[in-house]
Amino acid sequence: MAVNNDDVKLIGAWASPYVMRPRVALNIKSVDYEFLQEQFGSKSELLLKSNPVHKKIPVLLHNGKPICESSIIVEYIDEVWSSSPSILPSDPHNRALARFWAAYLDEKFPNMKGVITAASEEEKNAAVDQLKEVAVEMEGAYGEEDFFGGEKIGFVDIAFGSMLGWARAIQVMAGVKLLDEEKTPGLVKWAEKFSADPAVKDVLPEAEKLVEFSKLLSAKFKTAAASS
Amino acid sequence: MAVNNDDVKLIGAWASPYVMRPRVALNIKSVDYEFLQEQFGSKSELLLKSNPVHKKIPVLLHNGKPICESSIIVEYIDEVWSSSPSILPSDPHNRALARFWAAYLDEKFPNMKGVITAASEEEKNAAVDQLKEVAVEMEGAYGEEDFFGGEKIGFVDIAFGSMLGWARAIQVMAGVKLLDEEKTPGLVKWAEKFSADPAVKDVLPEAEKLVEFSKLLSAKFKTAAASS
Repeated sequence: MAVNNDDVKLIGAWASPYVMRPRVALNIKSVDYEFLQEQFGSKSELLLKSNPVHKKIPVLLHNGKPICESSIIVEYIDEVWSSSPSILPSDPHNRALARFWAAYLDEKFPNMKGVITAASEEEKNAAVDQLKEVAVEMEGAYGEEDFFGGEKIGFVDIAFGSMLGWARAIQVMAGVKLLDEEKTPGLVKWAEKFSADPAVKDVLPEAEKLVEFSKLLSAKFKTAAASS
Repeated sequence: MAVNNDDVKLIGAWASPYVMRPRVALNIKSVDYEFLQEQFGSKSELLLKSNPVHKKIPVLLHNGKPICESSIIVEYIDEVWSSSPSILPSDPHNRALARFWAAYLDEKFPNMKGVITAASEEEKNAAVDQLKEVAVEMEGAYGEEDFFGGEKIGFVDIAFGSMLGWARAIQVMAGVKLLDEEKTPGLVKWAEKFSADPAVKDVLPEAEKLVEFSKLLSAKFKTAAASS
């Protein structure tokens, strides 16, 4: 059931982990929105006008006003539709912790595609090792609860969980398991629960689709390179 | 007049722009704190224990609990000592804007030292050009008011203003003016007001001291390199 009569649009693309973040947040808040998908390789006028500094998705348009940057959008959604369920904890220290780990993931995890595009086996292994280190660090950061700091999906879960689709696609394409029973048993369980959550399951891209998308893209790049 | 009976400590160093951020925030809130300075080139046990992930200053210790990352600490200070003056705007859209520009500065401005340490004139010019572009972008982001979005120092002012000491040191050392009357007249005025603010003036490092510090460091590095 939608809670809003506001005009809410999200400029994004289905395959982007960063776009998934506000989608999960909007689902948690039961906010209806229009999903405006960008075409890969081009940028719409609306995107360029709405995010002139970075020219990047996602952008949330709330009654015409643009909000940019995935984690900032999630905080905005949490503040505007402030009736529970809340996404950030109410205690300032726990909020700081949640922001800390979300920022940590933003700093350390973007190089997932480095695993697929690595020029050599050595480069690939280095990228995989780094991602696995991050996973082990996150295993330590998570406690005994179902989600980060509680029983419901929160800020860190959204930041981290948005990477799960591509983590699974990497497993298919490069034979690399970023989460495993031996080193990150807690996160393996967390990933299952996160993926099955009603706010997540319809917006988490399936690994098979991402693999297909990835193949199409690399074919496109090769064609472009051959014809240039 | 101090508002707190809490135990507040800040692990930092006087020359760090990132450490300056929580210092200004604590001053705005009139919070008394103990300033624990790290020695350059070594990391204290307390720092390593308090920020085991990044091992970086600043760290705020509030009644023994560590909070890391300069912008996250500033938000924490704003939330804990929530009586006015507030640092972030109360309106969610303005908050998102403030976070956006603070994040932009964190992404684009860290390479100030690239101007000093550049190996060639070409490299130096590239670093200067990038910083000047950021300054022009920020000139556009600021409005007509004294500070970002209002008449009092806020989140973006703290993020940006913490760079002013080093910007002035660069002017002395490399003859480069990052803010000037022609391209960023509004920011020239803003920088004066910011530097003179009671919450800022005692914690903004003087350019001359930073120049001296910079010379000492490079002499130290040369000695270390020669003896290795």
